Amino acid sequence: MFAVIMAGGKGSRFWPRSRETRPKHLLDILGERTIIQETVARIRPLVPPERILVVTGQSHAAELIRQLPEIPAENILIEPVGRNTAPCIGLAALHILQRGTDEVMLVLPSDHRIGAEETFRQILRAAAEVAAAGKALVTVGIRPTGPETGYGYIEQGDPVPTDGAAKVYRVRSIREKPDRALAEQFLQKGGFSWNSGMFVWKASTILAEIRQFLPDLHQGLLKIQEALGTDREEEIVATTYGALKGVSIDYGVMEKAKEVLVIPGEFGWSDLGSWDALWEVSPKGEKENAVRGEWIAVEAKRCLVHSPEKLVALVGVEDLLVVDTPDALLICRRGRSQEVRKVVEALEKRGLTDYL
Amino acid sequence: MFAVIMAGGKGSRFWPRSRETRPKHLLDILGERTIIQETVARIRPLVPPERILVVTGQSHAAELIRQLPEIPAENILIEPVGRNTAPCIGLAALHILQRGTDEVMLVLPSDHRIGAEETFRQILRAAAEVAAAGKALVTVGIRPTGPETGYGYIEQGDPVPTDGAAKVYRVRSIREKPDRALAEQFLQKGGFSWNSGMFVWKASTILAEIRQFLPDLHQGLLKIQEALGTDREEEIVATTYGALKGVSIDYGVMEKAKEVLVIPGEFGWSDLGSWDALWEVSPKGEKENAVRGEWIAVEAKRCLVHSPEKLVALVGVEDLLVVDTPDALLICRRGRSQEVRKVVEALEKRGLTDYL
Repeated sequence: MFAVIMAGGKGSRFWPRSRETRPKHLLDILGERTIIQETVARIRPLVPPERILVVTGQSHAAELIRQLPEIPAENILIEPVGRNTAPCIGLAALHILQRGTDEVMLVLPSDHRIGAEETFRQILRAAAEVAAAGKALVTVGIRPTGPETGYGYIEQGDPVPTDGAAKVYRVRSIREKPDRALAEQFLQKGGFSWNSGMFVWKASTILAEIRQFLPDLHQGLLKIQEALGTDREEEIVATTYGALKGVSIDYGVMEKAKEVLVIPGEFGWSDLGSWDALWEVSPKGEKENAVRGEWIAVEAKRCLVHSPEKLVALVGVEDLLVVDTPDALLICRRGRSQEVRKVVEALEKRGLTDYL
Repeated sequence: MFAVIMAGGKGSRFWPRSRETRPKHLLDILGERTIIQETVARIRPLVPPERILVVTGQSHAAELIRQLPEIPAENILIEPVGRNTAPCIGLAALHILQRGTDEVMLVLPSDHRIGAEETFRQILRAAAEVAAAGKALVTVGIRPTGPETGYGYIEQGDPVPTDGAAKVYRVRSIREKPDRALAEQFLQKGGFSWNSGMFVWKASTILAEIRQFLPDLHQGLLKIQEALGTDREEEIVATTYGALKGVSIDYGVMEKAKEVLVIPGEFGWSDLGSWDALWEVSPKGEKENAVRGEWIAVEAKRCLVHSPEKLVALVGVEDLLVVDTPDALLICRRGRSQEVRKVVEALEKRGLTDYL
């Protein structure tokens, strides 16, 4: 089986660590390794490096290649321009078929955090078995921990009998980012999972679905397929890809396809959407402080300190997110890190591009 | 008249800006100029640079000389070792007498902040007139703004008739650092000022008082006086000064002398005892934030941001003191900056001497 890691993210939510030149998945905010290094390490017991493809944009490719020396150069697929997840996945599927094989592909975001890795791999194994046996689009669902409004909600339908231990359901409906009342209704009713953005299917299966629901994209992919491995590959990919419409695989395919299955799982998942999310998943010491770097506290509680290079002293403070970088410092009330975007907007407005 | 600026302070209360190598008076925390530069500029309309003496310790002398290029080199008096204010003032008095003149000396701390400079100079002028006319020890009193327990309280006695506009009183008693109840009593009773540590007297007057109340110190000063201007000056000062007992002019002389006068004044005084005090005296913008450096706020209130070199973004925070330096960052709840000492203690205990 193959793994396709989508590493096209930009993300200003981890400012000042994340910058235009350094998106979230290339940051070491979780520990020693960067997030994409963690993502690769996590699937290595399932997939050897020769079968791990990483799709990324031009501007971050060099750093990504540096961070993943074990991935062969030909497995790094560079999009000339970002066109959301459907073209990205289509491109990866072509590359898999071009290797003369129609195997299952695990499609994985590059920038999530998984706490229980072995459980996670069991779910992926189960999903791969189901996908290999037929023409299903399998998605991994996350058991909701609250009425979050930022995720897609997958409604489970009838269970599908399988040989394995994992529970598999038909997908009855997918509802993107509901309002709070609806999200609460979903939770009360039960049988809903969050859409994790992780998908499992055969390369031929997803291309067939793209042909049906995104024919323009499919036309473009055919052109690229012809050029793969030829002298004209680079040029054709650039012109064809650039002309594609950006569309997500969720909206473009998943919400329309017939044979969509979900395997709900619970494995300490976080999409690491903000500094608040990082505090939530970080190991904490005394008084619930999560600290990276040298620090001294005189009564500090429930703080995140992310300061790899500078000593931080906290005196009498609580519920702060403190992020130090060589040229910018963020101090944010815990629970308000969504508003870090506003800082980035203000920097743009004031033309302080060095900090972006 | 002469001015004697006492610049022997160390001070860890402005950590991380203040360090062993950079005490408070050498910091530019008030604005463009350092505190001692402000202190000198403030008295320049009263005293020309040739008559301004600065007493400092060996370890900070080089930086101080660099900061005060207008002060002649021979006016920088370097104490071989700190022995509190009485020896420091005695040494300065010797130097004034050695110049063949027995003039009034204004004795001033190097590290205070004065808001209303012209009012301040008027008080000093009045004090100098009184001191020049007789043998009084004149001290400048500060009208108390609250029952602070960290200051000395001077009780005013009978008024002394003068020609000028300033009100001059005999000092009835001096009470160092009373407890809160007593301080409140003083305020209720009225007729008390804080001891500002600023004194005005003739050089011969203070030396006569030292002879009476601190005879050992006087003996030492006589030895130094003989050596001044000779080849042996450096050696004699080093050995004699080192053998002196440390004693403050308040405890050693002021509390015992007979003819002590006080001129109370109100001129926006602060002893800049902590980062909280700096916030108090700093000009504030919208939402009472006092900012030094580049910053962006998404709802921030009543914060001090002191970050000359790094952009600081605040999101949803209030009542914080934020101080950034190249190697250390302090974030302290407003009102608790006295506890910054505890950070310095912790650094000492952990052997993190680079930050001291």
